[in-house]
Amino acid sequence: MFSYTYRHRVRYRECDPMGVVYHGHYLDYLEYARTEALRNAGLPYRQLEESGIIMPVVDISIRYLSPAHYDDLLEVTTRVEKMPSVKIAFDCEVSVVEDARKTEPVAPRLSARADVTLCFVDAKSGRPRRAPESVTRVLADAFARIP
Amino acid sequence: MFSYTYRHRVRYRECDPMGVVYHGHYLDYLEYARTEALRNAGLPYRQLEESGIIMPVVDISIRYLSPAHYDDLLEVTTRVEKMPSVKIAFDCEVSVVEDARKTEPVAPRLSARADVTLCFVDAKSGRPRRAPESVTRVLADAFARIP
Amino acid sequence: MFSYTYRHRVRYRECDPMGVVYHGHYLDYLEYARTEALRNAGLPYRQLEESGIIMPVVDISIRYLSPAHYDDLLEVTTRVEKMPSVKIAFDCEVSVVEDARKTEPVAPRLSARADVTLCFVDAKSGRPRRAPESVTRVLADAFARIP
Amino acid sequence: MFSYTYRHRVRYRECDPMGVVYHGHYLDYLEYARTEALRNAGLPYRQLEESGIIMPVVDISIRYLSPAHYDDLLEVTTRVEKMPSVKIAFDCEVSVVEDARKTEPVAPRLSARADVTLCFVDAKSGRPRRAPESVTRVLADAFARIP
Repeated sequence: MFSYTYRHRVRYRECDPMGVVYHGHYLDYLEYARTEALRNAGLPYRQLEESGIIMPVVDISIRYLSPAHYDDLLEVTTRVEKMPSVKIAFDCEVSVVEDARKTEPVAPRLSARADVTLCFVDAKSGRPRRAPESVTRVLADAFARIP
Repeated sequence: MFSYTYRHRVRYRECDPMGVVYHGHYLDYLEYARTEALRNAGLPYRQLEESGIIMPVVDISIRYLSPAHYDDLLEVTTRVEKMPSVKIAFDCEVSVVEDARKTEPVAPRLSARADVTLCFVDAKSGRPRRAPESVTRVLADAFARIP
Repeated sequence: MFSYTYRHRVRYRECDPMGVVYHGHYLDYLEYARTEALRNAGLPYRQLEESGIIMPVVDISIRYLSPAHYDDLLEVTTRVEKMPSVKIAFDCEVSVVEDARKTEPVAPRLSARADVTLCFVDAKSGRPRRAPESVTRVLADAFARIP
Repeated sequence: MFSYTYRHRVRYRECDPMGVVYHGHYLDYLEYARTEALRNAGLPYRQLEESGIIMPVVDISIRYLSPAHYDDLLEVTTRVEKMPSVKIAFDCEVSVVEDARKTEPVAPRLSARADVTLCFVDAKSGRPRRAPESVTRVLADAFARIP
């Protein structure tokens, strides 16, 4: 399993008149987390783009379980559990780990759960292609360490 | 069936370095379309909020089928096919109806398909509640006209 | 003088926990208004880009005078009063023309005033260049009609 | 002088078809930096709001000097040089400190310079008011340390 946890502080501009994070911004959080997960694995997304591969999102499924509020601290955990072929699936959880409305520490609370699928695409032809070896090697290593 | 079609012009700020609409903004388009669908049915969302009811999004599932580009004209069709109880499900399609890269008219092209579920919540108690009569009456009328 | 007025409905995602439009989104409104002003003058921005000219924003000055709220209807008036050389200056006003909190019509209320300067840049060389003739001709015509 | 430097990684969703940060997002960066500057001074903005004070932005002036690109690392420096009365002025600089297109380290490059003015407002009455003592004390301390 490949897994990475990213931390994000909820910003004022991300909150709506209900006082909670507007639902659309969770997709941004998931993007930040994927980006940092890849960087942490030695695979900055920019390098993939420079090698002629783009990774458009093809599918997202997200369930909102509990709202997050202004200035909360979130943890976004991103997992890859299956070796990618043409597509790669990320399994994500967004949790509130610091509740800005409380002065005492709180137990982490699950805010949303999401499945995100991206596709490997050849930037020039616009055609789907298999995951490049740079990606599969990194994942194979991670899978070997944590089955 | 309750159905409404909303038109949106793709803005520069909505497009990413791939030159296409960033996937997260589709959730905004869906929100604009729901809002205008409710207004068109004589039910501005603001009135619902003023009557003490909020409608958080609880679930979204979206498939991206074909990219939209800067300055394209989109049609977002929003349907309700089932009488809501505590939740209401919107069935949505985003199509490109004007392709800004072409000078000739084009056949509409499906860009994304989404299912969005919202919940009726009592703003004071924070508890889920049944759809108010103002909503069910409007939908019953629509269902009577178009089964 | 070249002048154009664009209408925008305030969206939920644009409002913050104070219940008003988050200040950053006014820059988006100004972009929408410039784009539609150019299109209305027969000069879609996409055509400029396709002819190898980009127009980055180089300077913005904005004063927020009165907040706008969710579901308000705004008018964004965009004026060009001076023939552009390498730069073009837009003089903008954002007014609330429908106040969603009131059932009665209201007198328009100025919400913000802004000066936006863009630069004509050759996309290939990245160098500033003079406004293309397509732009100066449209403006000269408008200036002839309304001095 | 009160001064704080905040670091931000440029996100994909923040970049436009020119491949650079869309100009509107700089206002978000400035907000993030102000928030963290206040928190670092022991004054989380959330506490101000809970004490009944809101701080709407009343004026922004920003000059864009050099574009930032996807995955660049930015430093946003925020300074307060004058004791606030009803208004507080922030003097800001956004610099690119890591250029994602280069493998070698680069000298920091100024990307934008901005002046942002906020107003202290009593949340209940909606009236402007003087800066609370919690804010002026923190600034007086900072001014004493660095004149």
